[in-house]
Amino acid sequence: MGGGRLTPLFFPGSVAVVGASREPNKVGHVILANLKDGGFRGSILPVNPHARRILGLKCYPTVAAAARSLGSNGKGSGVQSRRSDGSGAAGGTPHSDRIDLAVIALPAALVPDVIEDCGRAGVRAVIVISSGFRETGKEGMLLEKKLTAAVRRHSMALLGPNCLGLICSESHLNATFARSMPAPGGVALMSQSGALCTSILDWSARELVGFSRFVSMGNKAGVDESDLLRGWRTDRDVTVVAAYLEQVSDGQRFLREARLTTRKKPFIILKAGVTDAGARASSSHTGSLAGSEKAYRAAVLQTNAIMAANMEEFFDLVNLAARQGLPRRQGVAIVTNAGGPGILAADACEKAGLAPASFFGKTINRLRAVLPSAAGIYNPVDLMGDAGADRFREALGIIAADRNVGSIVVLVSPQAVTDIEGTAVAIVEHAGASDIPVAACFLGGRDIEAGVEILRRGGVPDFPFPERAVKSLAALTWYAGRRHDKFDKPRSYRVNRGKVRRIFDRARRDGDLKLGGLQVLEVFQAYGFKVPRGLLAHTPEEAAAIAADIGFPVVMKAVSPGLLHKTDVGGVLTDIDGAAAVRRGYEEIAASFKAHMPDALLSGIAVQEQVDGTREVIIGSARDPQLGPMLMFGLGGIYVEILKDVSFRIAPIAPAEARAMITEIRSFSLLSGSRGERPADIDAIVDALGRCSQLVTDFPEIVELDINPLLVKEKRSGVKRGDVKGGGLRRGDVKGGGAWVADARLVINP
Amino acid sequence: MGGGRLTPLFFPGSVAVVGASREPNKVGHVILANLKDGGFRGSILPVNPHARRILGLKCYPTVAAAARSLGSNGKGSGVQSRRSDGSGAAGGTPHSDRIDLAVIALPAALVPDVIEDCGRAGVRAVIVISSGFRETGKEGMLLEKKLTAAVRRHSMALLGPNCLGLICSESHLNATFARSMPAPGGVALMSQSGALCTSILDWSARELVGFSRFVSMGNKAGVDESDLLRGWRTDRDVTVVAAYLEQVSDGQRFLREARLTTRKKPFIILKAGVTDAGARASSSHTGSLAGSEKAYRAAVLQTNAIMAANMEEFFDLVNLAARQGLPRRQGVAIVTNAGGPGILAADACEKAGLAPASFFGKTINRLRAVLPSAAGIYNPVDLMGDAGADRFREALGIIAADRNVGSIVVLVSPQAVTDIEGTAVAIVEHAGASDIPVAACFLGGRDIEAGVEILRRGGVPDFPFPERAVKSLAALTWYAGRRHDKFDKPRSYRVNRGKVRRIFDRARRDGDLKLGGLQVLEVFQAYGFKVPRGLLAHTPEEAAAIAADIGFPVVMKAVSPGLLHKTDVGGVLTDIDGAAAVRRGYEEIAASFKAHMPDALLSGIAVQEQVDGTREVIIGSARDPQLGPMLMFGLGGIYVEILKDVSFRIAPIAPAEARAMITEIRSFSLLSGSRGERPADIDAIVDALGRCSQLVTDFPEIVELDINPLLVKEKRSGVKRGDVKGGGLRRGDVKGGGAWVADARLVINP
Repeated sequence: MGGGRLTPLFFPGSVAVVGASREPNKVGHVILANLKDGGFRGSILPVNPHARRILGLKCYPTVAAAARSLGSNGKGSGVQSRRSDGSGAAGGTPHSDRIDLAVIALPAALVPDVIEDCGRAGVRAVIVISSGFRETGKEGMLLEKKLTAAVRRHSMALLGPNCLGLICSESHLNATFARSMPAPGGVALMSQSGALCTSILDWSARELVGFSRFVSMGNKAGVDESDLLRGWRTDRDVTVVAAYLEQVSDGQRFLREARLTTRKKPFIILKAGVTDAGARASSSHTGSLAGSEKAYRAAVLQTNAIMAANMEEFFDLVNLAARQGLPRRQGVAIVTNAGGPGILAADACEKAGLAPASFFGKTINRLRAVLPSAAGIYNPVDLMGDAGADRFREALGIIAADRNVGSIVVLVSPQAVTDIEGTAVAIVEHAGASDIPVAACFLGGRDIEAGVEILRRGGVPDFPFPERAVKSLAALTWYAGRRHDKFDKPRSYRVNRGKVRRIFDRARRDGDLKLGGLQVLEVFQAYGFKVPRGLLAHTPEEAAAIAADIGFPVVMKAVSPGLLHKTDVGGVLTDIDGAAAVRRGYEEIAASFKAHMPDALLSGIAVQEQVDGTREVIIGSARDPQLGPMLMFGLGGIYVEILKDVSFRIAPIAPAEARAMITEIRSFSLLSGSRGERPADIDAIVDALGRCSQLVTDFPEIVELDINPLLVKEKRSGVKRGDVKGGGLRRGDVKGGGAWVADARLVINP
Repeated sequence: MGGGRLTPLFFPGSVAVVGASREPNKVGHVILANLKDGGFRGSILPVNPHARRILGLKCYPTVAAAARSLGSNGKGSGVQSRRSDGSGAAGGTPHSDRIDLAVIALPAALVPDVIEDCGRAGVRAVIVISSGFRETGKEGMLLEKKLTAAVRRHSMALLGPNCLGLICSESHLNATFARSMPAPGGVALMSQSGALCTSILDWSARELVGFSRFVSMGNKAGVDESDLLRGWRTDRDVTVVAAYLEQVSDGQRFLREARLTTRKKPFIILKAGVTDAGARASSSHTGSLAGSEKAYRAAVLQTNAIMAANMEEFFDLVNLAARQGLPRRQGVAIVTNAGGPGILAADACEKAGLAPASFFGKTINRLRAVLPSAAGIYNPVDLMGDAGADRFREALGIIAADRNVGSIVVLVSPQAVTDIEGTAVAIVEHAGASDIPVAACFLGGRDIEAGVEILRRGGVPDFPFPERAVKSLAALTWYAGRRHDKFDKPRSYRVNRGKVRRIFDRARRDGDLKLGGLQVLEVFQAYGFKVPRGLLAHTPEEAAAIAADIGFPVVMKAVSPGLLHKTDVGGVLTDIDGAAAVRRGYEEIAASFKAHMPDALLSGIAVQEQVDGTREVIIGSARDPQLGPMLMFGLGGIYVEILKDVSFRIAPIAPAEARAMITEIRSFSLLSGSRGERPADIDAIVDALGRCSQLVTDFPEIVELDINPLLVKEKRSGVKRGDVKGGGLRRGDVKGGGAWVADARLVINP
């Protein structure tokens, strides 16, 4: 649904309230009252067959009758024009000869028919407040399907059902049953929880944070988060986008829209509910590690959106971003009238990764000139307990002029001689004249209240504790620092897609959806991965012959349908040198397999080239039900299994993102060449991640996938010290990097 | 300083204010006014040679004159009796024939002489408000030394200097220059920041949190945190101890007192400023990892104290502990009138490690019977958006009766029909009649304010966001669950302390304070550690002879004064088999050493028994300037260097603590036998940690120490698979566990 389709929702010329009620406690009454009280200038048309007037407005028995009344009035046409004069539609009274928006507050069972009525009467958009749909179970789900069918039939926009409604400050439209209307401002909020909407409205009434759009999305049968992002990213009334989300409707689209949004304005997300993916039993490493909050967070951060860790951070971020804008550079200055809180704020900076600004010499000299000798003139700047408002004013002016300062935290402790209100005024005046974001912390309770009120009215957010100010500034500084970074495009590799399609088709025919052994290596080979040479042997003699052809030493692995963890059944031998050893190895694996899995079929034993001189990494993918194919990267063995030292992204990813996945694991220095080792061929891993990204994007039927291990050579040609002992280079040894899929598994949908 | 010595500070019969002033803005005036206004019933004696009366009180020219006035009045004697009648000294007017407490607010330079006057006049305790001492530099430090000398000479108790003073609710004593006096209550607070005190006072004035003791410790030249802990742990007016600390004066004593305190009541700490230890250049792993916040946190948690991560958590914990007490069991129930916030609260529980209670069937049936059908009757309990106060009341009653519920979080979102005040009343009434802690979250701003006020007055803490309620409950539940655990005593090992003393003495004589090579192994041997057999060789031939005597293979290591990281200079060879190889090895190490360190002296090359079949761990110690000897444990190599997967405790530690250190590292399962390996001999590591703890406790001159690696055998006897290949068992192989110090280094003080 494009931005244009949202216009009748936010800027209608006329609004019908279907289910308008005379009883003040009914939702259908509150909505009508809110519409009227909010100052909406278009036509308001209550629809209620049993009333003649409600709240002084003429009632209509049906939507059709209401629509006719507009037509017969012949009062101009169309949706409000958007701010052609820079001030919304305030210049004239908008009218419409059809109903732009119908707000429906009727029992659920009646809604589909009313929607049909709306469609026939030419209504362009509907908000369904009513609950009793998908959220109540199977019957509600059917009702919701009827509802959306009717909406689609008439090409209407739909918000809801099961929502609180929406508010648009610019059109003075309060189409909700909330208690209050927020002040106008730059924040656009979407929420999947109506109750959270009411909490935010009440919070903003106290904090005086202003909103331009306010949308309770309810069941999201029509408009969803991606639609709103698309509309809001170019909406000049919106400076900050905030979202409370429980699920996203289309993860891939959401991530795309989020990326486009963050290039224009900050997008702050509060996500509730860890996904179910982590909980479901999973046979793969990736599956069991993905779906966690960590993975979700990684996916969202891929878009440069700011993910709030909890409700408090969400409110704080919205407050700060809306009222003080973005820092233009790194470096925070702390100004305080109390040492202890100054240390706590500095501690918080370190924890939050927000670098303290180091002042220029000039700044320090200027501070020294105006402050008492015992004051702290470095950062944190300690103005001392006897600081009056003027000392704050002077110090703020000096500090804000320093080109190393990107933001300022002002801490005020109500000490014996502290002028709380005067200091608040000084801070407000400073912040009003400066484009450097200021966050205030008045530390206390009763006595500071008057100061806090001055800050609120003056547009300076006050945080009760320094850590909160610091955390919010850190997040906005992070965002400001990368908002202009270009998002690379995923690289497109030339691959043999048809071959993979054929392998999957065959697997489906065979009813074996778990691919392993040599078969799965063919998939990766088709996507341009290097795999060790190898063949499946069915007898010891055949194995010896294959090995002789490949060259010793070789690796031998049991192959059996459904066998996923070969080492657990004694199904892997490495470093097998000589024909006799291969024959012995064949017998050994076969015996061990039979002992561990007496009822399973051993298809044969794969004999493979042994790739030496490598480090093992794991690349995996699992399909998140909301976000799509999630890629995982980590070092092999204990690093994934025990230390869970892995990184995540949602496919498709660009090379830069693949590289970031590799560098951000804690154990990265093991790859980059710690402890005297040569660095591994990182480029080869980047390439492998890119190809894997393309594979899971091309084939949505891939449920999960593990390349374990991917064997990675050292970066440059050369001979390792250890090889001297072994007597010369062996085939497959370090010769200019590269990576091999030594083993893999893959599960597809039926 | 014992609890008894604190009595004249908190329960004086008479108080002199030295430096009392007529000018209302002067500290000396405010203190006098606070004393008077606070309702103190003993004598108040302003001392000021230039005034006759201040605030209606007769002034005295000197402390001596003031003291004489008491004597001549002959008004009874002594310090107030502590609550002999259960109500403090409120029964009668306390009097004293000497001055119990003098509060001094004079310029710093005058203070030492005035202290002397106080001592001569028989004053028992002094509070020095004045600043200008240690905190200002060298001269101030000298002045402070004079001050403390005078205090000691006259055996007085001292609080300060450079402090805000103290408050004792029971004696109605407000001996501070703060703006306000807190309500009486169970919290005793000590703070190293005066400004933080004023913030807390102001905060408590709004939140209505009550205090029994309130102490600004200033420079802690006299009374420090350990003294206060000792006094407060048996003080029945104190139910919660809270501390804001920047440094502790005596770490070991502090940890001891903290342990004793937490057996009686919760002790909540806010620590500011990471210690300097981490910042100073350190040549050891332990040194560079200790001194971090992590290490400090581990040390404090060893005492069962609750460490607040920041100021907000500190306030929240104090609020909850003071007003709702401790949960008696695990399991939190969430009650909400809004789904979204309910999910966020459940998410927060998972993050904070607070287990949601699972209700008994009876509870679920009772909830089903009283709630609407669409309500959520499992945990979280969703009362629905239309819940009135009665529904909250009924649900709370049912839930609190469930024996799986240890605490309750109530979330209230101000929806269209929410009865905010009625719901607040219902919660207060419920909490008043129940011993299960209740934390409320009224989610909003303006409309909820009246409800929040009802909660405050009713003793139910309100948290603006659910995550904060959950975090605080999680911390108190953690504490409640372990407060009755016994602290084990450290085991005392029989060791050869004299030998270590001689080695250290010799090292000091030689001026080589960094011990390595074979010399340091003697230290550990003297403390009962196993070390590989070995000798120092000075020629290739000598090395070959030593090796032949030990048996092959051997390990060879360069030994040089000051050489700490042998591998960096090619100074270590392992697995050297045969006399020829040993001779070659000697030449190789010597050449490499010369190439890397042309100016250093090679003392010789150590030839050692090679201990095989082991896993490598690291045990280290570094002396934290505040807390004392800190022990560190981790796996060898990358686990410490790159993954920083280590645990910390402050020595001395008991075996149970040593075991906890081992199990709490992330990579513990590598020791306990993951991936088909046998478990390592954990008991041997516990033993090694215990002996190391004793070593660093016995010898405070040990600045830092690394056992790297400690080689740990498998737990039980047995033959590893790999050994078959090598042809039978080699000496030193797996024979029933044990641990060897293969290499170590140790630095002592001059």
